[in-house]
Amino acid sequence: MSDTQDLRVAVLGVGVMGADHVDRINRRISGARVTVISDASPERAAQVGATARDAQLVADPFEAIAVEDVDAVLLATPSAVHAEQVLACLHAGKPVLCEKPLATDAEGALEIVRREAELGRRLVQVGFMRRFDHEHERLKSLIDTGDLGQPLMMHCAHRNPAVSPRCDSAAVITNSVVHEIDATRFLLGEEIMAITVLRPTPSSHAAEGLQDPQLVILETETGRMVDIEVFVNAGVGYEVRTEVVGERGSAMIGLDVGLVRRTEPGSWGGQITPGFRERFGQAYDSEVQRWVDAIHAGGRSGDCVDGPGSWDGYAAAAVCAAGIRSLETWDRIEVDMVPRSIIGRSGSAGAAPDQPE
Amino acid sequence: MSDTQDLRVAVLGVGVMGADHVDRINRRISGARVTVISDASPERAAQVGATARDAQLVADPFEAIAVEDVDAVLLATPSAVHAEQVLACLHAGKPVLCEKPLATDAEGALEIVRREAELGRRLVQVGFMRRFDHEHERLKSLIDTGDLGQPLMMHCAHRNPAVSPRCDSAAVITNSVVHEIDATRFLLGEEIMAITVLRPTPSSHAAEGLQDPQLVILETETGRMVDIEVFVNAGVGYEVRTEVVGERGSAMIGLDVGLVRRTEPGSWGGQITPGFRERFGQAYDSEVQRWVDAIHAGGRSGDCVDGPGSWDGYAAAAVCAAGIRSLETWDRIEVDMVPRSIIGRSGSAGAAPDQPE
Amino acid sequence: MSDTQDLRVAVLGVGVMGADHVDRINRRISGARVTVISDASPERAAQVGATARDAQLVADPFEAIAVEDVDAVLLATPSAVHAEQVLACLHAGKPVLCEKPLATDAEGALEIVRREAELGRRLVQVGFMRRFDHEHERLKSLIDTGDLGQPLMMHCAHRNPAVSPRCDSAAVITNSVVHEIDATRFLLGEEIMAITVLRPTPSSHAAEGLQDPQLVILETETGRMVDIEVFVNAGVGYEVRTEVVGERGSAMIGLDVGLVRRTEPGSWGGQITPGFRERFGQAYDSEVQRWVDAIHAGGRSGDCVDGPGSWDGYAAAAVCAAGIRSLETWDRIEVDMVPRSIIGRSGSAGAAPDQPE
Amino acid sequence: MSDTQDLRVAVLGVGVMGADHVDRINRRISGARVTVISDASPERAAQVGATARDAQLVADPFEAIAVEDVDAVLLATPSAVHAEQVLACLHAGKPVLCEKPLATDAEGALEIVRREAELGRRLVQVGFMRRFDHEHERLKSLIDTGDLGQPLMMHCAHRNPAVSPRCDSAAVITNSVVHEIDATRFLLGEEIMAITVLRPTPSSHAAEGLQDPQLVILETETGRMVDIEVFVNAGVGYEVRTEVVGERGSAMIGLDVGLVRRTEPGSWGGQITPGFRERFGQAYDSEVQRWVDAIHAGGRSGDCVDGPGSWDGYAAAAVCAAGIRSLETWDRIEVDMVPRSIIGRSGSAGAAPDQPE
Repeated sequence: MSDTQDLRVAVLGVGVMGADHVDRINRRISGARVTVISDASPERAAQVGATARDAQLVADPFEAIAVEDVDAVLLATPSAVHAEQVLACLHAGKPVLCEKPLATDAEGALEIVRREAELGRRLVQVGFMRRFDHEHERLKSLIDTGDLGQPLMMHCAHRNPAVSPRCDSAAVITNSVVHEIDATRFLLGEEIMAITVLRPTPSSHAAEGLQDPQLVILETETGRMVDIEVFVNAGVGYEVRTEVVGERGSAMIGLDVGLVRRTEPGSWGGQITPGFRERFGQAYDSEVQRWVDAIHAGGRSGDCVDGPGSWDGYAAAAVCAAGIRSLETWDRIEVDMVPRSIIGRSGSAGAAPDQPE
Repeated sequence: MSDTQDLRVAVLGVGVMGADHVDRINRRISGARVTVISDASPERAAQVGATARDAQLVADPFEAIAVEDVDAVLLATPSAVHAEQVLACLHAGKPVLCEKPLATDAEGALEIVRREAELGRRLVQVGFMRRFDHEHERLKSLIDTGDLGQPLMMHCAHRNPAVSPRCDSAAVITNSVVHEIDATRFLLGEEIMAITVLRPTPSSHAAEGLQDPQLVILETETGRMVDIEVFVNAGVGYEVRTEVVGERGSAMIGLDVGLVRRTEPGSWGGQITPGFRERFGQAYDSEVQRWVDAIHAGGRSGDCVDGPGSWDGYAAAAVCAAGIRSLETWDRIEVDMVPRSIIGRSGSAGAAPDQPE
Repeated sequence: MSDTQDLRVAVLGVGVMGADHVDRINRRISGARVTVISDASPERAAQVGATARDAQLVADPFEAIAVEDVDAVLLATPSAVHAEQVLACLHAGKPVLCEKPLATDAEGALEIVRREAELGRRLVQVGFMRRFDHEHERLKSLIDTGDLGQPLMMHCAHRNPAVSPRCDSAAVITNSVVHEIDATRFLLGEEIMAITVLRPTPSSHAAEGLQDPQLVILETETGRMVDIEVFVNAGVGYEVRTEVVGERGSAMIGLDVGLVRRTEPGSWGGQITPGFRERFGQAYDSEVQRWVDAIHAGGRSGDCVDGPGSWDGYAAAAVCAAGIRSLETWDRIEVDMVPRSIIGRSGSAGAAPDQPE
Repeated sequence: MSDTQDLRVAVLGVGVMGADHVDRINRRISGARVTVISDASPERAAQVGATARDAQLVADPFEAIAVEDVDAVLLATPSAVHAEQVLACLHAGKPVLCEKPLATDAEGALEIVRREAELGRRLVQVGFMRRFDHEHERLKSLIDTGDLGQPLMMHCAHRNPAVSPRCDSAAVITNSVVHEIDATRFLLGEEIMAITVLRPTPSSHAAEGLQDPQLVILETETGRMVDIEVFVNAGVGYEVRTEVVGERGSAMIGLDVGLVRRTEPGSWGGQITPGFRERFGQAYDSEVQRWVDAIHAGGRSGDCVDGPGSWDGYAAAAVCAAGIRSLETWDRIEVDMVPRSIIGRSGSAGAAPDQPE
């Protein structure tokens, strides 16, 4: 495709997240437009389609992937269908940005890693948007320049205001903790070797039987430790805080959410971001813009990824699987992953986790 | 022009600011591309043009404005030529986004206000980018909802790291304080009636004869007061802080610049933004995206402004002129402005300062 | 007096402030106890006296000063009687800690300076307690070590939650701004040369006719400038903030009042100190402990002051007098002070303002 | 003893901590003075004694306890001798403030609890000074008033700048973590049921073989969880941070240590407290003042404790013992404690941990 022509994107799944992406691509991203919209609900597809004049509606997701004037695919469909849709994109040779998770189990994710490696070019990007957040980028840079010394520990808090009553204890790990799992791999640059999920007194805001909050401990290959407080019904707002503690100092991001410091009778303070879209809006924009740019740059035969790839999706899935077993058994569980070396060149080469390139 | 076709923009003046705008429009803004570049320096024009494949170089700025496949003009030329180039845009009926100042004197700005009023549609937007900064937007919203009660005072600090040795004391007002002048009008929603420029002990970092810092007092129509500390050679980084003090509380923005809070031996803290591009990058992007969207929406006969207009440019010029006299006379100077009512419908109608619409 | 024997203190005036001092001396200060209490109201004297078992009540303040087993006097009587009571202490050769102001006019204060100079030893300390506040001490130290470079400006905010409806516009200066006047002299180490009192839109919380808030500009001998926002009916709590802006950086104290940073639904923040006793409790304790220690150290013939002295009380009174004229005339007023050199050794020697020694 | 007479205190052990206490009692505490000093080193005793004119030196600690004009004892001797010295105080019927730990093992501490219970009055206070820190008091109050909702988790960071090379991994628990153990019991008001000591990658600043940092997990009776990062060689300064996360919000203390927020080229921030004396000076002063007041109030037959008592010392010792086993075994260890009900009235009655009364 020509560099001066807009990238034509099919967006599959236009619930909250997918509708956001349609709006983002059509109104804020340079060099791309949405040409196909697909959703299991024809009403929802029509409603979002009405905001995107150039887009045609295609009911079947696999047909949508195959449409000729689609250059790339953005997947915001339900988790359960991610793996097969990503494989269809690979089969069609089309770049895909898949919202997390890449697959609901480690095996499904590994299969994608293998197929992409066989193709010999990187086409699969996974939506771990925190890697594009300016705060996370700065924290990463402090670590990489050695300003903090060798990192020894990380402390994370991840507080969602509220979730659907259907959320179960395992979903807390696969939907929420998965972000800290990827952030740990991104920031520390190594794989996670073991996970322990602890069960503090549950909040009375949580549905009966839901373990909320959870306290998760990760251990990396070289023995660094990460503790994660995760709430899905914190009730307070959306707070994501990460502190890296190194040999020469520590650094924290996400402490004060809110731009304005104000006083009122008796108190000072500010506003907590209500949700993830307000907190990570900039990160989503950067993620999609850089993905679009990477596809323009990669062209018809090069790599089309700028960010976390299929291997990162696989690693996250493997750690989540171990986390769910820890939740069930109350034990520390070691993570079961294939060595990265057995995968060929792409999928994402090298021993280290994928980095934005 | 069609809504689905990219807006074709001529960028006049591609120094630091203009080159930024070229990059912004071509790489981050949806629905626009740069088709013409013009600069007094052919080398600079060629250099920036090389990064913008679709753009042709046109040496003469007035020819550039007139090029047929130019839908709109972004002016980042030297201040002295702004007024005549804006008038040329009006003459051609083309929307223009003019970096501040609109004109170097109040008379020049008033002439633009009158011409635009005669045209009957708003085509002139002025580059007071702070109005698009999320922090300023939030502060404005706190005032407008009445959460702070009636605003009584504002305290501003505006610290530039360093300026060219050619900067003189009057330029401190027209280049730097002008932003607080517009922010005052934007936040408080009324005109400035008087200005006093005080002269504290000059910094030894300032060139001989340069009054740096300055302490400026503004008084609004209803008697609110604003104090402004302005440095052009603060040496520390780029800090812009604004506090509004109301009857029911106060609110401050810009206190902690820097995303990461870190510790190192003996101290905690963070990084100060090095310059205005890092501090206001988001605001510039929003400003240009909303300008582009406004032109798409306005079409060939509607208003093409979303933000501060020609009247705001005139008001700022009038206050700056009074400020320069205060600097010379050491006195409090009342601002000399025509009543807004004598201007016709556009230019920007109504008694209040222009607001983003 | 012996170093191992408790200093016997007469407290004159036991309203809110004096009663606090009685409690402080008897319960938290080492090496002193209250032996005499005097107040114009016999009921109030009896009530406070009941909390201080060792103290006798003496109705007449001059008799109280003269009581034989009184080693030192703490004055918390109404401002109008300060000067004559301080003179009586000097006459009796007894050290005195006088709550501000030292006198209600500059002439009265100057008379005290002269009398003390004749005595040849320093016996008069004035209750500018901010000099003993750890935050002010640290700010002073940053200035004195040169870490901020040459100070060029100061920005102050002084917000009282509410005052008696009898408070008039001049009292805003003599009771509230007087603290910033002393803090300026303490921090910058030079005299104030001119004062301008500006009148922003009054708050609707202020009584009819009361100019509240006020915006005060001080100019020092070397041309540094200080702006002071002062509220006596801010309604929010007690906030005292000071920022010193120097050639190499700035430093601010008093920004976040409140020890705990907390979140609640939608917001983060903390508590604002309700009043001056909570904010400056540590400073009052340190002030009195150091005064007691100074008297133990000074003995019967040495200096008995550790903190601001009579000259500081005089300087503050002179600046306040000019401030009240500025309030009346709407003009900038130069401060009228005798040169310090015409006063003899004590009163407090040297050209610089008194410093804690 | 009479209420108006100074409490006569023997200070045993005048190393850094004990010498501080001598100075504190003689110079800042109302109603007490040091009359006896004892130390294993005659030189050190003489040196500190020289600063305390009224004090006699008594070499033998048990003789020092027995001296007739000693009303109360403050123990700052090495940990190994605490238990027997506290028992001697109980035997002599003299109130004692014992620096932590109360005893080096749980059995020794339990013996003290039993003896005190037999006496029928509370004479033993333990030096967990954090309970007297204004920040901890405010956090406690937020919990007790229900403002945070039910507390579910606590996150602690405890970073010491550096320790003696002789410090071993178990001492990290008994000297440092012991403060978080007491703070957990104080803040949450219940006993700790289990402890797990995890071993992150050690810092290169730590001596060979020292597990530094450690990551400790506490579980309370009702299932709340506390994670504690502890460093003894953090190198950065002294940081103590505690966050309580409740069902309705969270609260954090100790984040910004340092009174002044300053800027310098490129950065903003402040100073980290260099050590525990700067951080907790106010807490030590309050602790000793309240202990002295309690003894004045208790007189010859009442309770002489205002703060953590012998049961708190026992509970801390029991949790530390379990922690050391966890460190050795890499396992989660349940805490072995006698039920509080089997102890009689004193020792400290009731099922809840001792609270300041």
